[in-house]
Amino acid sequence: MAIEGSTEKREARIRLGMVGGGSGAFIGAVHRIAARIDDHYELVAGALSSTPEKSRQSGAELGLASDRIYDDFRSMAIREAKIKNGIEAVSIVTPNHMHYPAAKEFLRRGIHVICDKPLTSNLADAKKLLKVAQESDALFILTHNYTGYPMIRHAREMVKSGELGEIRLVQMEYPQDWLAEPIEESGQKQSAWRTDPKQSGAGGSTGDIGTHAYNLGCFVSGLELEELAADVHTFVPGRALDDNAHVMMRFKGGAKGILWCSQVATGNENALKVRVYGTKAGIEWSQQDPNYLWVAELGKAKQLITRNGAGANAAAGRVSRIPGGHPEGYLEGFATIYTEAARAIIAKRKGEKVEPDVLYPSVQDGVKGVAFVEACIASSKRNGAWVKA
Amino acid sequence: MAIEGSTEKREARIRLGMVGGGSGAFIGAVHRIAARIDDHYELVAGALSSTPEKSRQSGAELGLASDRIYDDFRSMAIREAKIKNGIEAVSIVTPNHMHYPAAKEFLRRGIHVICDKPLTSNLADAKKLLKVAQESDALFILTHNYTGYPMIRHAREMVKSGELGEIRLVQMEYPQDWLAEPIEESGQKQSAWRTDPKQSGAGGSTGDIGTHAYNLGCFVSGLELEELAADVHTFVPGRALDDNAHVMMRFKGGAKGILWCSQVATGNENALKVRVYGTKAGIEWSQQDPNYLWVAELGKAKQLITRNGAGANAAAGRVSRIPGGHPEGYLEGFATIYTEAARAIIAKRKGEKVEPDVLYPSVQDGVKGVAFVEACIASSKRNGAWVKA
Amino acid sequence: MAIEGSTEKREARIRLGMVGGGSGAFIGAVHRIAARIDDHYELVAGALSSTPEKSRQSGAELGLASDRIYDDFRSMAIREAKIKNGIEAVSIVTPNHMHYPAAKEFLRRGIHVICDKPLTSNLADAKKLLKVAQESDALFILTHNYTGYPMIRHAREMVKSGELGEIRLVQMEYPQDWLAEPIEESGQKQSAWRTDPKQSGAGGSTGDIGTHAYNLGCFVSGLELEELAADVHTFVPGRALDDNAHVMMRFKGGAKGILWCSQVATGNENALKVRVYGTKAGIEWSQQDPNYLWVAELGKAKQLITRNGAGANAAAGRVSRIPGGHPEGYLEGFATIYTEAARAIIAKRKGEKVEPDVLYPSVQDGVKGVAFVEACIASSKRNGAWVKA
Amino acid sequence: MAIEGSTEKREARIRLGMVGGGSGAFIGAVHRIAARIDDHYELVAGALSSTPEKSRQSGAELGLASDRIYDDFRSMAIREAKIKNGIEAVSIVTPNHMHYPAAKEFLRRGIHVICDKPLTSNLADAKKLLKVAQESDALFILTHNYTGYPMIRHAREMVKSGELGEIRLVQMEYPQDWLAEPIEESGQKQSAWRTDPKQSGAGGSTGDIGTHAYNLGCFVSGLELEELAADVHTFVPGRALDDNAHVMMRFKGGAKGILWCSQVATGNENALKVRVYGTKAGIEWSQQDPNYLWVAELGKAKQLITRNGAGANAAAGRVSRIPGGHPEGYLEGFATIYTEAARAIIAKRKGEKVEPDVLYPSVQDGVKGVAFVEACIASSKRNGAWVKA
Repeated sequence: MAIEGSTEKREARIRLGMVGGGSGAFIGAVHRIAARIDDHYELVAGALSSTPEKSRQSGAELGLASDRIYDDFRSMAIREAKIKNGIEAVSIVTPNHMHYPAAKEFLRRGIHVICDKPLTSNLADAKKLLKVAQESDALFILTHNYTGYPMIRHAREMVKSGELGEIRLVQMEYPQDWLAEPIEESGQKQSAWRTDPKQSGAGGSTGDIGTHAYNLGCFVSGLELEELAADVHTFVPGRALDDNAHVMMRFKGGAKGILWCSQVATGNENALKVRVYGTKAGIEWSQQDPNYLWVAELGKAKQLITRNGAGANAAAGRVSRIPGGHPEGYLEGFATIYTEAARAIIAKRKGEKVEPDVLYPSVQDGVKGVAFVEACIASSKRNGAWVKA
Repeated sequence: MAIEGSTEKREARIRLGMVGGGSGAFIGAVHRIAARIDDHYELVAGALSSTPEKSRQSGAELGLASDRIYDDFRSMAIREAKIKNGIEAVSIVTPNHMHYPAAKEFLRRGIHVICDKPLTSNLADAKKLLKVAQESDALFILTHNYTGYPMIRHAREMVKSGELGEIRLVQMEYPQDWLAEPIEESGQKQSAWRTDPKQSGAGGSTGDIGTHAYNLGCFVSGLELEELAADVHTFVPGRALDDNAHVMMRFKGGAKGILWCSQVATGNENALKVRVYGTKAGIEWSQQDPNYLWVAELGKAKQLITRNGAGANAAAGRVSRIPGGHPEGYLEGFATIYTEAARAIIAKRKGEKVEPDVLYPSVQDGVKGVAFVEACIASSKRNGAWVKA
Repeated sequence: MAIEGSTEKREARIRLGMVGGGSGAFIGAVHRIAARIDDHYELVAGALSSTPEKSRQSGAELGLASDRIYDDFRSMAIREAKIKNGIEAVSIVTPNHMHYPAAKEFLRRGIHVICDKPLTSNLADAKKLLKVAQESDALFILTHNYTGYPMIRHAREMVKSGELGEIRLVQMEYPQDWLAEPIEESGQKQSAWRTDPKQSGAGGSTGDIGTHAYNLGCFVSGLELEELAADVHTFVPGRALDDNAHVMMRFKGGAKGILWCSQVATGNENALKVRVYGTKAGIEWSQQDPNYLWVAELGKAKQLITRNGAGANAAAGRVSRIPGGHPEGYLEGFATIYTEAARAIIAKRKGEKVEPDVLYPSVQDGVKGVAFVEACIASSKRNGAWVKA
Repeated sequence: MAIEGSTEKREARIRLGMVGGGSGAFIGAVHRIAARIDDHYELVAGALSSTPEKSRQSGAELGLASDRIYDDFRSMAIREAKIKNGIEAVSIVTPNHMHYPAAKEFLRRGIHVICDKPLTSNLADAKKLLKVAQESDALFILTHNYTGYPMIRHAREMVKSGELGEIRLVQMEYPQDWLAEPIEESGQKQSAWRTDPKQSGAGGSTGDIGTHAYNLGCFVSGLELEELAADVHTFVPGRALDDNAHVMMRFKGGAKGILWCSQVATGNENALKVRVYGTKAGIEWSQQDPNYLWVAELGKAKQLITRNGAGANAAAGRVSRIPGGHPEGYLEGFATIYTEAARAIIAKRKGEKVEPDVLYPSVQDGVKGVAFVEACIASSKRNGAWVKA
């Protein structure tokens, strides 16, 4: 990034494949835009749907060459690993339960994987995927996209450098309202698989958005969860998975936190919010207004830091494309994950070391996320008993 | 209220005494302003400090006649109950542990009591006070002042009339930062008694501000707590009482909630916030911007209702003094409690029935608040087990 | 003020009379609350309406002794000046055209005048009133109430002490929407006299609210207007006075500004806003959120200063009653003007010098305001030619 | 756009060239990202700098084939018009004075032009360019990028469909602070050409940002300017062009407006704001929070419409990529202009009619912008006399 006032020395684009993301899928389109924004990728192959016909049609619509459109991810992995100029990386944007089987095929063949969250639909799969990833020379990048926002980078850097003092509190919330009514019953595709345990796993709101909030709280605070006590609930009658969760947390080292995620909080679109309070300063960030970060030093007036504006630190500037006052949004944050991945992939390609400031969510972060979901469910089943993370 | 564009037919002012609130006390001055704003009271007597000399000096400074300045609340109750034109009502603004002994003396003598919160420093006293109040013909008003804000009245009315549908979630938070450091050690008066179990009771932040948030959540939602699970904590080393609490709640009827109160959340002045989400609509209110209420009907754009503005309902207008766009604040909200009390006291004086729209926190609300504090402590001692409210 | 944590040494209350402010008048009630909040006044006499019967009824409703209710202001001035314990000060809250004749009667008899704005309905009267005031030993206080807001005091102090550097721009705006339709035609009292040239003078929105914005811009910036060019307009058909004005300004010393006032800007309740930009820093303040002041030093992150919070200066703290995070509003700001007046009046009473930090709008400020209105009208008649202030 | 939940049927990408935008240029990089986001373009040729060596280096960095990197725009136009698969469109992102000569070369050869604003550095050139464009079969698109924001489309549609009633007021402001000090003297490239009359033309802030605000006010309101009165000023000593302007406006049909643009308003990053008030409703939009639109119907509570959220209209949804609550920013708004252009270009390519909802700023809009700048300067030279637009 850092494109402000410059062209960039460009390496050849990374040849990218995609699993899932065909017609009717929202997140696939987001991944494709994210991959394009900083121009480090070229989409050249796809197994875009579990229905071969739909895969072919979607591939054609996206302008893929017909011999690079596959009926299933396995054939794609096999062939792309063999052909000249086969894909170097693949984006996996299927429902959760397919992440592990798909990722495995590519990692084993040395193809880098960029995978949507949560990592898998259950902890057993997550651990298997961890092992596969550790045994592979290929990279694994999990798109906890909110970690790509510049002001989140700013916040994390502040904590790391001690500007907040000792962290006492990490408050995370992620309310939405799009599942306030049982829209899955009328076949709305986004909600159908997200409320289906077979495709999503044991967690509903906890898996879909709780993991984002949890990941972000840890990313910013640098803390690790020790244990949690949860009250996970389903408000909409007939729904199989949770649509609201209240979670109390204790972090290693003594900090505490609350996490609230909900898909029935009427009036909330995508109101992810993280607040971290330390002995010296506190910070507050809201995803819906992502170009701002509130910073309050104890005993001083609050400051409103703006992305790439006066007061923004180098960690924020590094992942910023345009000047302060010119808002960047969700797609740019997502693109940053792709660009961080590209930096790592290109370093690999050239046999170089990845620069130390390259930062993306890892398979380990993914395992933690799935463990979080299962701990929430377990605690809730035991009526909110504290469960080790 | 409803003074807009009119004078008001005025009854003779209520003769008021005060217990506590001498030199160095913050909340006493607030009560005096609140009593003056709508002009229903006249302060004529006081036992303003437990130190007789200080009481006398403070009384003189306030312009009280010297024979109406008392060394202690008991002598005040005894004499004022006897003399012609003695006080009709008394404001009790002492530290918590004195609320019960003081209130008792006045209630037993038929003098109305306007008492600061929390009701008492422990549940045993609270129950005794409840009994005394029930046996007395005098009124008891608890100054959970935040219930006096017009937009809180608007919110409550919306819930009552079903505009939110069935309530699912009540989220309460009350972060402050003024106790982020051990300022009580340097003798700062406000913090000294609030962190002293002998004067405050078992709860620190839970008693001081948690009770406000809890009362407000119940006031708006009309719900009753069934059980809670709490993680109550003291972050500042050496402090005897809690300065942070995380509480998960289950309300009768199936709604759920979180309550977070903190006095170490750096950057928060007095950030009380209540959010209520139902099946049909959700509302959000923040004490620091009290003239606004966010209302979101499911599937419609959010509305920002302003106090006495277009869209404000009659319950809000009833306790509003000036037009929308002319902000009213904390003191006006507090004054509304005094004015509601005055309506009831004057009705009593005239032998009339209190109008049904008069609304103020009662001794029962106070008992619930103290029970809430003790339940938080009890749950926390049992490592967050669910405890009946 | 500065009541936080203390009682105040109290002088005997100032005996106050009121001219205007009877039944149906909004601003009279505001003045009465403002006079009560800090407890420096006691309302003891009134000529509350130009209709004697209404005056008497209103006086009774306010609890005035019957011999202190007058049929007209002149009899009130004459008698109150003679009797023992007659009024020391009078509040004049009539329509504009009565300010001069009423004020004159009291000033000439040594009774202090607290007068609503604008000073008079025309510049000739304003200059006569200036002369009367200068010849009188009594004080004259103009209730440009917005100058009483703590964050406005903060802002002014910042400019004065050079924190903004050299001022370049003063942007004032005051949009409302309550006159977007011809409500005066249906006899709504507030609008009826405000749109009547006989009672208001030559200015409609310019006089009613433009003068507030202009006064505030000058109060904060410390600048004096040199010349203006105005486009004054009436949007609502059949209305005799302006309901919108655009004004370009040049201040002495080279700063520039824009003033926009409107009573037809749909969606604006009382959106007075002042922004001042200097070579070193800029500030922004909005009346509807008065407890906040944005401060931006060139090249640094913006700060949000809160009333009486960390970062608020002594000038703001001096006129603040309660801690930061406990919002004060319009009535408290108005009360500050009354309290500043009380400080001056009590100093006079005691033969002492008024403390130098006492600050209230003067008769000279009032003359400037009326001159501003007439300059706007004059410029507009000459199609926006620049007119000396 | 409208990619939510779908792939898109894709036409072959438009072959794009670029003039200007080499190393050190900010806006060139923005255009390139904007062209990529929706994947309708492929950058294949460039004359990226007036210095041939720099053009070559920049082209190589961007991965252009060496025979498609040109020393100057004229050779590029000549050759690309001849070769097979030459460019179909060109982006012109040079300083203002080169827009006309460059655009002419391409338009005359039937190559579509996407040109940065303002149209030209003077009105004479603007009129010549208009003529060239009218005589050409190629399209001309001016990147007044702010018209691409979804909530701006929403606002425009509201006005068009009569939801605001008759428009009375259009208030535009565009304050920045990056030129508060003479940074051009130290050679900062962005400021150097913007403050140089030879490259920018007669307007400084008026041309650079005033034209944006003016264009946006007209775009939303649908009004045409009749005359203006301006006070244009240079605050920073030694600067050749204006850095602040105050403009009063009268629109055809009777509406009025103010436009303020400034590059010395300390604390403002890029605070473009448009407010339109009609007889029935008013709207407010701020570029720094572009996903929101305030809508206030007279006599109702304000609504906060969010991009692609409940309440957003079809005109907003049409140019929205992702769901409400997932903020889109400046780059997406810019990309919308490119995508609208692509729709028109592809229609041309296929010999089809452009769909009627395709909307982009035209060469005529550009002429109006340059005329606006010259009218501001002319009015200001005549001390603010009204000048016809």
